Amino acid sequence: MNKINKRMWCVRGFVTGKKVLIVYAHQSPGSFNAAAKDAAVEVLTAQNCTVEVSDLYTMKFTAAATAEDITGEVKNADHFCYAEETKLAWEAGKLSADITEEQRKLTEADLVVFQFPMYWFSVPAIMKGWIDRVLTLGFAYSDEKRYSQGIFKSKRVMLSFTTGSQESMFSANGINGDMNVTLWPLQNGILHYCGFQVLAPQIFWAPSRVSSEVRSTMLKDWRTRLEGVFGEEPLSFTPLDCFDGETGFQLKPEVHEKHATREFGLTVGIHLGKPLPPNNQMKAGV
Amino acid sequence: MNKINKRMWCVRGFVTGKKVLIVYAHQSPGSFNAAAKDAAVEVLTAQNCTVEVSDLYTMKFTAAATAEDITGEVKNADHFCYAEETKLAWEAGKLSADITEEQRKLTEADLVVFQFPMYWFSVPAIMKGWIDRVLTLGFAYSDEKRYSQGIFKSKRVMLSFTTGSQESMFSANGINGDMNVTLWPLQNGILHYCGFQVLAPQIFWAPSRVSSEVRSTMLKDWRTRLEGVFGEEPLSFTPLDCFDGETGFQLKPEVHEKHATREFGLTVGIHLGKPLPPNNQMKAGV
Repeated sequence: MNKINKRMWCVRGFVTGKKVLIVYAHQSPGSFNAAAKDAAVEVLTAQNCTVEVSDLYTMKFTAAATAEDITGEVKNADHFCYAEETKLAWEAGKLSADITEEQRKLTEADLVVFQFPMYWFSVPAIMKGWIDRVLTLGFAYSDEKRYSQGIFKSKRVMLSFTTGSQESMFSANGINGDMNVTLWPLQNGILHYCGFQVLAPQIFWAPSRVSSEVRSTMLKDWRTRLEGVFGEEPLSFTPLDCFDGETGFQLKPEVHEKHATREFGLTVGIHLGKPLPPNNQMKAGV
Repeated sequence: MNKINKRMWCVRGFVTGKKVLIVYAHQSPGSFNAAAKDAAVEVLTAQNCTVEVSDLYTMKFTAAATAEDITGEVKNADHFCYAEETKLAWEAGKLSADITEEQRKLTEADLVVFQFPMYWFSVPAIMKGWIDRVLTLGFAYSDEKRYSQGIFKSKRVMLSFTTGSQESMFSANGINGDMNVTLWPLQNGILHYCGFQVLAPQIFWAPSRVSSEVRSTMLKDWRTRLEGVFGEEPLSFTPLDCFDGETGFQLKPEVHEKHATREFGLTVGIHLGKPLPPNNQMKAGV
């Protein structure tokens, strides 16, 4: 490959034309989270990505999942079931305008970044509202299409967040418990469930407790990481075909057997009575 | 103790005068969650408990944590930090009326029950909003008062929820991963962090996938459990004094050593590179 072709390939394969959605939840433009979001917009735009930001507080994004998310009559008002009603509404094009617009952004995106301060070991409520209301049955998953066969399996996703606690508190010996455990319901249960290739989380440990120099270094490292984000290897999850739908989606005996002599379990959630694979929810290739 | 005294003791010690807060999140009065909530109100009221229900959807409870939660001026509008601003507002009696009212209910309660359908491996956004906005710094926790020394250590709490998935999918071999892992950030990170004695969760496995007879049995079992709820042993968590504040709240070496030869780790989150204690987040006394 000569120099010009190589450059063209880079431009086509890695840079030009990628679409990025940043789902952002912080109240203040002066926050570290805002700076992290702005850095992502700048670095990715400079790589010719098209970047859209859903700034949830500024949008006053609705968090509560209600019948108002459906235009017109619901099927069963007395026994309202959000998953079923939104599936029917999605099929009929009757989801509310704010949900439809977020679903459009998500459909177009090659990479989704969730940027937020961790609130109570999870995303802030307004971001949980985005998850509850945008990732509807039919649009984002179905009984047939989930996990490694999920609808968004060609998309990448990343949690990028600040903590209040120091890193030591979230270590496997720390009082908050292993961050890998805290990440499991978010990364496996929401993101991988919809098929996303989950990239390692970007964790900004307690930026409010460090100097502005350290915060600057954190942002510099973040910018560097983003330059290569489309080449990153995603985290490992157990493929759907390792489970048997006939037995309530339990691990197949042959998979269990294959892993019986190994030191660690398969993942944080599927640990086979063995130690968790270290940093399974934090690092690719483990 | 003669018969009359024994009855009196039961009335005083177990039944009369206890206050219960049910934080409830379902859109429909015809739902299984509504039936579970109604059963709890009935059984606990019949035991002479005073029961308050925060019906979040009916209240149109605000989920998003914003500067509007503070009456009057905030300290730093440009660098708005929700935890710090709500701490100051709480001290000054300037939290919004809806938060103040929920804090009153919580202060008075001996038992708090969260009744909800599990959405995306966690509580629905409207309930996360209750958690984010009501459990404010100063009122619900501080650097000095948390975990086993937490502010609500004389109170009991329970998660009572329905799932969409069958139980097998949330087993340690199941595709959703171990339910104990999913419960850790909720039960340790939110509830135990504030000091609560966390009772075993009441999990209604996929009521929408079973017959009405099975659902009736589920509710009957729930009613029976509630009759003895003030006598239940809470789940186990590692006491605060096992961690060393000087080393970033890592487990003290002597505690680590004491557990070195044991088969299982301390908890789901603090597993010491060993298998998780089976059902540590589901059953008392393990």
